[in-house]
Amino acid sequence: MDIKTIIQKKRKKGELNRDEIRYFVGKFTRGEIEESQAAALMSYIYINGLTEDEIVNLSLAMAESGDKIDLSGISENIVDKHSTGGVGDKVTIILLPVIAALGIPVAKISSRGYGVTGGTIDKLEAIPGYDPEISIEEFKELVKNNGISIINQTLNLAPAEGKMYKLRNQIACTDSLPIIAASLMSLKLATGSTKIVFDICCGNGTYIKTREDARRLAKLLVRLGKRLDKKVACTITSMDEPLGYSIGNILEMQEVINSLQGRMPEDLGEVVVTLGGLILNIVTENKNREENEQKIKEVLRNGQAFEKFKTMISSQYGSLEYVEHPEKLKSAKYIMPVYAIDSGTIERIDADIVGSIARYLGAGRMNNEKEINNTAGIVLNKKIGDNVTSGEIVAYIHTDDESKISGATQNLQDAFKLTNKKIPIKPRVLDIIV
Amino acid sequence: MDIKTIIQKKRKKGELNRDEIRYFVGKFTRGEIEESQAAALMSYIYINGLTEDEIVNLSLAMAESGDKIDLSGISENIVDKHSTGGVGDKVTIILLPVIAALGIPVAKISSRGYGVTGGTIDKLEAIPGYDPEISIEEFKELVKNNGISIINQTLNLAPAEGKMYKLRNQIACTDSLPIIAASLMSLKLATGSTKIVFDICCGNGTYIKTREDARRLAKLLVRLGKRLDKKVACTITSMDEPLGYSIGNILEMQEVINSLQGRMPEDLGEVVVTLGGLILNIVTENKNREENEQKIKEVLRNGQAFEKFKTMISSQYGSLEYVEHPEKLKSAKYIMPVYAIDSGTIERIDADIVGSIARYLGAGRMNNEKEINNTAGIVLNKKIGDNVTSGEIVAYIHTDDESKISGATQNLQDAFKLTNKKIPIKPRVLDIIV
Repeated sequence: MDIKTIIQKKRKKGELNRDEIRYFVGKFTRGEIEESQAAALMSYIYINGLTEDEIVNLSLAMAESGDKIDLSGISENIVDKHSTGGVGDKVTIILLPVIAALGIPVAKISSRGYGVTGGTIDKLEAIPGYDPEISIEEFKELVKNNGISIINQTLNLAPAEGKMYKLRNQIACTDSLPIIAASLMSLKLATGSTKIVFDICCGNGTYIKTREDARRLAKLLVRLGKRLDKKVACTITSMDEPLGYSIGNILEMQEVINSLQGRMPEDLGEVVVTLGGLILNIVTENKNREENEQKIKEVLRNGQAFEKFKTMISSQYGSLEYVEHPEKLKSAKYIMPVYAIDSGTIERIDADIVGSIARYLGAGRMNNEKEINNTAGIVLNKKIGDNVTSGEIVAYIHTDDESKISGATQNLQDAFKLTNKKIPIKPRVLDIIV
Repeated sequence: MDIKTIIQKKRKKGELNRDEIRYFVGKFTRGEIEESQAAALMSYIYINGLTEDEIVNLSLAMAESGDKIDLSGISENIVDKHSTGGVGDKVTIILLPVIAALGIPVAKISSRGYGVTGGTIDKLEAIPGYDPEISIEEFKELVKNNGISIINQTLNLAPAEGKMYKLRNQIACTDSLPIIAASLMSLKLATGSTKIVFDICCGNGTYIKTREDARRLAKLLVRLGKRLDKKVACTITSMDEPLGYSIGNILEMQEVINSLQGRMPEDLGEVVVTLGGLILNIVTENKNREENEQKIKEVLRNGQAFEKFKTMISSQYGSLEYVEHPEKLKSAKYIMPVYAIDSGTIERIDADIVGSIARYLGAGRMNNEKEINNTAGIVLNKKIGDNVTSGEIVAYIHTDDESKISGATQNLQDAFKLTNKKIPIKPRVLDIIV
C-alpha cells in the first residue's frame, strides 16, 4: 500500500477501504507522509466526497490514533453536548449543570478556543482557582460523586483530528461535511460518551454557512451514531447574531452565572431549554418534548442547576466568592459605549464581525501561543428586533488597550444592520434532528 | 490577496488571473506558503484544469522565478530539442551535433537524470574529462565559435519548476497536462531558445501514457509557443520498447558514437532523422519533409556530424581517445546474458520494467544524493518484431554487483512479451505536430 495510490484512487472517485484509511491516518499522525500528500487527499475528498462507510472508517481510525478514556464503569448514559461553535456561545457551561441536576452523569472533556474567542475551558478558567487539568482519576471520581466534571483535553485524544484540522485550515477545507462529521465522531469515540447532542451552529461567524448544509451534517451524524453505537441527536442553531449579550471570558461567565440565577437572555434560554429537552429525550427515551423541556426549566427555576454549578466549580478548586458575586470578577480598564449611527430596527448583528472585533480586543488568541485577556470583550445592549434611534447605545467595548477603542467602535457599528421593515421574531433553534 | 482565496477559486472552477498566478508562484518559490497549500492548488488544477491564459501566465511566472540566460547576441535561431523522457533515449546527444553540422547554432542547457536512468549530462560525463559545468561566458563563446555546446543547468533557472515538480511527484500529479506544458515552456523561456522541438514520449516507462494525451500536450505546446513568441513543433514517439539497444551511461555513449559513425539502430535513426528534419522545417521554413530529412542523413553519412561531436567533446575537455575508441570506456565487472524462457515473436519490451532494472543495477540514482555507476546497464539483443527461440540470448546485464544478477535476470525475462501472431512493423514516431 502506498499513499500515492490512495490519492489517485480518491481522485478517480474510488471508495477507500478500511485498510487504506487506517494506513493514511496512521502515517499522517506519525508524520510518515508529507503534508502535501495529506493535503492532496483532503482536496480530492472535498471534491469527490466520502461514502458513509468511508466516514465510519475514518472516524474509527482517527479515534484509534491516540489515547481513549474508558468511562464504562460510571454509567451507561454518559452525556456529551458538543457545539460546532458560534460567537457568544456559552450553552455548554449553563446546560451541563442543568443535566447533572437531573441526575444524569456529565463527564465532559472540553478544550480551549483557537477561533475568535475562548473555548469552554478558557471561560471556566476565568473563575479564579478553577482547575480544568485535574487527573483522569480525579475526574472520574468527581463524576461518580457529584455527577459532573468538565476538564481540559490534555490526553492525546484523537491526535489525528487536531493535526488534520490544522492542515484543513491551511487549505481552506474546514467546511468539508464528511470530514467534519468524521472528526466530531472520532472525538466522541475517544472520550467514551454514549449519548451525544450536537448543536450545529450555522450562519455568519461559523464554518457551516447554510441551514441546508447544517441539516445534511446533522442527518449524517445521526446515521453515523447508529453505526458507531452512540445515540446521537442534533439541533441546528442560527447565528444571525451572537448568542446572548456577552462575548469574552469573564463577561460570558457573568452571563452564565446570571442565567443560572434566573436571569437568562431569551435566545440563550431557548437554546439551553431545547438542547436540554433533547438530551432527556435520548437518555430517558421520553419523546414528549414539552415534558422534557419543563424538567429543564424546573431545575433552572428552583436553583438546583445553580447549586450543581457551584459544586462543580468548587470541587475543581474554583472560588465560590466570584460565583456568588460575579461583579467582583476583574473588569477591563476601559468600558466604552458604542452608539447607533442610524435609526431603525436591528435586522442582523454580523457575528463574524463581532467575533473578529472581540479577538482584536484581546478576547481571543491571535495565535496558538498567546494568552487570552479574560476581561476583554463586547457586551451587546441591543439584539435583533430591537428598535434603536441614532445616538442610542447599542453595545459596550471592554478593553485594556486604549488605542483599540476607536477602530473597534467603528467596526462594531458596521456589524449592526438596520432596516425600516418590521422584523418577525425568529427562533434560534431552527431544527431538531433525532 | 491570499492563498486560501486562490485555492477556493480554483476549486470552484474559476480562472486565476495573472496577479493571482504570480502571487502563488512567487510565494511558493520563496517558501512563503505551506507545501500543503500548493498541493491543494495543484490537486484542484488536476481536476479542473487550466485555461490557455492561465498556462501562459503560469509559464511566465515560473520563468521569472529565477535567473534567465540571454542568447540574443548569438543568433535569432537558437535551437532547443527537449525530450519528455523515455528509457534508452539518447537522441539529444546524437541529434544536436547533426544540427550544428548543418550550421544552425545549438546552445543546449541540459540536466542530470533523476528518473530510472541518467540524463543527458550524466551520459556526456561518461566520456572522461568532459566538463558540463563551464561558465556561461565560455558556453556562449563555444556556441559562437563551434556552433555547439551542451552544459548542465547550474544556474537558478525557473526554480519554481523544479520545486513544483518535486511536490507534484509527492502527490501523484506529474501527469497533469497543463502543468507539464507550463513547466516545459517556463524552462524554455528562461534559457533563451527561440526554436524548440519537443519529443513527447508516450507509453510505458513515461509519464504520458496514451497517444491521445501526447497529442493534446503537443497541440497545447504549439499554441503556447505562438503566444510566447517561440516557434514550437512536436513529435510523438512511442515507448513500447526502449529506444535503441543500450541503457546506462557508458553503454549509451557507445551507442551514440556508433550511431554517429554510421551504425545507428533503426528505431533510433528514425527518431533522429524525423526530429532533425522537423528542426530544419521550423528554422529554415522549408516544409518539404523529404528534403529536410535528406540533409540530416547526409551529415550523418559524410561524417560531418561525428566531427562536430568530437569538436564539442574536446572543446569541453573530453578525451577524444575514448570517442575514437569507445570500446576503451570502462566496462562492468559482470556482463551476463539473459536467455529467452519461451519461443515466439517479441510483441513488447516493457520499458517501465527495463528502466527499473537498469536503476536497480546502478544505472540510475536511487535518490538525489547517490552517484550513478557509469558502467551499469542493459544491452538488448533483440527488439520488437524479432523472433526468438527458448534459450536464445535476448539481452545482457552489465553490473559490478554479483548479488543483483539473478533478480535482474528474472525481471528482465518478464519484460519481454512474446506472441505467436505476426507483429507488423510500427513506426517509432507516431505523429508530427507543427
